[in-house]
Amino acid sequence: MPNPEPDSRTMQAVVERTHVGLVHGGGGRLAQELVDHVFGEQLGSLWLPGQYDGAVIEIGDARLALATDSFVVNPLFFPGGNIGALAVNGTINDLAMCGARPKFLCAGFILEEGLELEALDSITTSMRECAESEDVHFLTGDTKVVNRGKGDGLYINTTGLGVIEHETVIEAKNVRPGDVVLINGDIGRHGISIMSSRVGLGYERTISSDCAPLVRPVFRLLDEGLQVRCLRDLTRGGLASRLNEVAQSAKARIEIREVDVPIRTEVREACDFLGLDPYHVANEGRFVAFVAPGDADRALELLREAGDDTAPARIGEVGDAGDGLVVVRPNVGSPRILDTLSGESLPKSS
Amino acid sequence: MPNPEPDSRTMQAVVERTHVGLVHGGGGRLAQELVDHVFGEQLGSLWLPGQYDGAVIEIGDARLALATDSFVVNPLFFPGGNIGALAVNGTINDLAMCGARPKFLCAGFILEEGLELEALDSITTSMRECAESEDVHFLTGDTKVVNRGKGDGLYINTTGLGVIEHETVIEAKNVRPGDVVLINGDIGRHGISIMSSRVGLGYERTISSDCAPLVRPVFRLLDEGLQVRCLRDLTRGGLASRLNEVAQSAKARIEIREVDVPIRTEVREACDFLGLDPYHVANEGRFVAFVAPGDADRALELLREAGDDTAPARIGEVGDAGDGLVVVRPNVGSPRILDTLSGESLPKSS
Repeated sequence: MPNPEPDSRTMQAVVERTHVGLVHGGGGRLAQELVDHVFGEQLGSLWLPGQYDGAVIEIGDARLALATDSFVVNPLFFPGGNIGALAVNGTINDLAMCGARPKFLCAGFILEEGLELEALDSITTSMRECAESEDVHFLTGDTKVVNRGKGDGLYINTTGLGVIEHETVIEAKNVRPGDVVLINGDIGRHGISIMSSRVGLGYERTISSDCAPLVRPVFRLLDEGLQVRCLRDLTRGGLASRLNEVAQSAKARIEIREVDVPIRTEVREACDFLGLDPYHVANEGRFVAFVAPGDADRALELLREAGDDTAPARIGEVGDAGDGLVVVRPNVGSPRILDTLSGESLPKSS
Repeated sequence: MPNPEPDSRTMQAVVERTHVGLVHGGGGRLAQELVDHVFGEQLGSLWLPGQYDGAVIEIGDARLALATDSFVVNPLFFPGGNIGALAVNGTINDLAMCGARPKFLCAGFILEEGLELEALDSITTSMRECAESEDVHFLTGDTKVVNRGKGDGLYINTTGLGVIEHETVIEAKNVRPGDVVLINGDIGRHGISIMSSRVGLGYERTISSDCAPLVRPVFRLLDEGLQVRCLRDLTRGGLASRLNEVAQSAKARIEIREVDVPIRTEVREACDFLGLDPYHVANEGRFVAFVAPGDADRALELLREAGDDTAPARIGEVGDAGDGLVVVRPNVGSPRILDTLSGESLPKSS
């Protein structure tokens, strides 16, 4: 699959060095640099390179996880979901990736003057339905209104609080040679659906977003006591960014077999047409689980039981080389290194 | 003090009935209606009319409070602070108003393409300084980038988690006849400073925002075991909105003596010139405490010790009439009913 030409990306980064650019929003390397700068250096937080969207804290006798995310997707409504469903599922999925059971949500709405109240109602209805189906409660919230031309209909921030019930420590640096990489379904649908809806390419007629909650499949694995080392949902930056984060945190090489990565034919065709690598395209209902080798078969079975039409698969293993690289072995030809994009492949997909 | 003409406000509300309008953002009655609709009816949350910005939950043996707020202020920098200081102080103050000691913050940044990184650095530096001074830690965060013309430099959402250490139950419905109303300082500075900066009226040269953390004064009261019934910070909608919320929740009449409400001469002059009621203007470092009569003198003493140049005062009492009204007794003439604005007096002040 062709990547955007490196030179043009570098150029864009240089031009935008003193100002925020769209390149900072794509979930690639420059986005990570901005996040590291803002949260690591400036806010002096616990944020570390490779740490994930949720944070784990202990208060009294409880182990809690907190996750926050802002949603700025355009269009607000797309095949398979809307910004409200994304805002609930996105944040509860970040909690699930910490091994936390989502309990409570806060929501902050930034509404643009002129937004139709009917649209707002549809969106909040989706939010309620998504939260109810996962037994998550809205605790508190906030609305602000900005002048026409200072927003994009609406932006939603959700923050989730979850409870960690299991002893299993789930983090990237636990990943070790021999671990098996599982995925819960086919990749690329959300990103292609959004991009196609935005510019009317027509793919949105056949490709719907995979937006979905991931709490059930995750807890199928955890409740059975399987040795789950690390979980990552494949949002902005796609499979490529998440695997690279894990490889770097764990200082391990991850080896992926291209033939085993589930991609629907129509997604593959759309990616070919658009010049995109499906490994870089955003998903909203997909995750990878790194599982101890002895538990891999059972884990895959449980993911199959939990999934509907999602085609879970074993896509690779963690190798012995401690070089922090992700290597993809194609159906034909030599292995290639799968890199994180520096800029954006799909802005504003969540 | 003259209010905006009622007819024009009503007109604006009718025109905007099917769409979000700026009237929904001012912290007045229409803002409350929107919030009640979104959070009460649509999200089916615990949000109730009169409930405040923070929510209290119990997990394990811990009593926790969560608060969330989005900040969309323009300009980003103003005399006495910037959007970053607001975003930290605003949310920790919401926690303090629940009687919770702020511990952790999450931050979500929505950055507009073209924002100067230097401005972002100044803002995050303020955030770090404000958080450090209150011993609050940033746990996790998120950045999104939106296209030029789809934001206003940056918007920040902060969500705070605090721990309730005291047994005192702080809520509006505990307020009862005889309780004393205290305020921690003079009102109206934040709103006038912002409004004046925005359009270059010149008042910003003499009037700075009162943006400040309220954790210390609140815990001076709570740590001494005083009977504090209810706490409210006087943000959007000002003193008038907060007193009305309490009066309605407690089904009690609140009686305020105009002569005792601290307002600086320059703020009063600016309000006269702009046709604003200072009771409706936003503050960011001011709160009212409803305190049992026997504890009022001591509470005022503690507020004086905790405040710097803020002029704490006893401004009124809770009367016997159970009509949910706020009545202001002016220096000269008959008492007047102090109403909540229906629309906005000062949009985007936080």
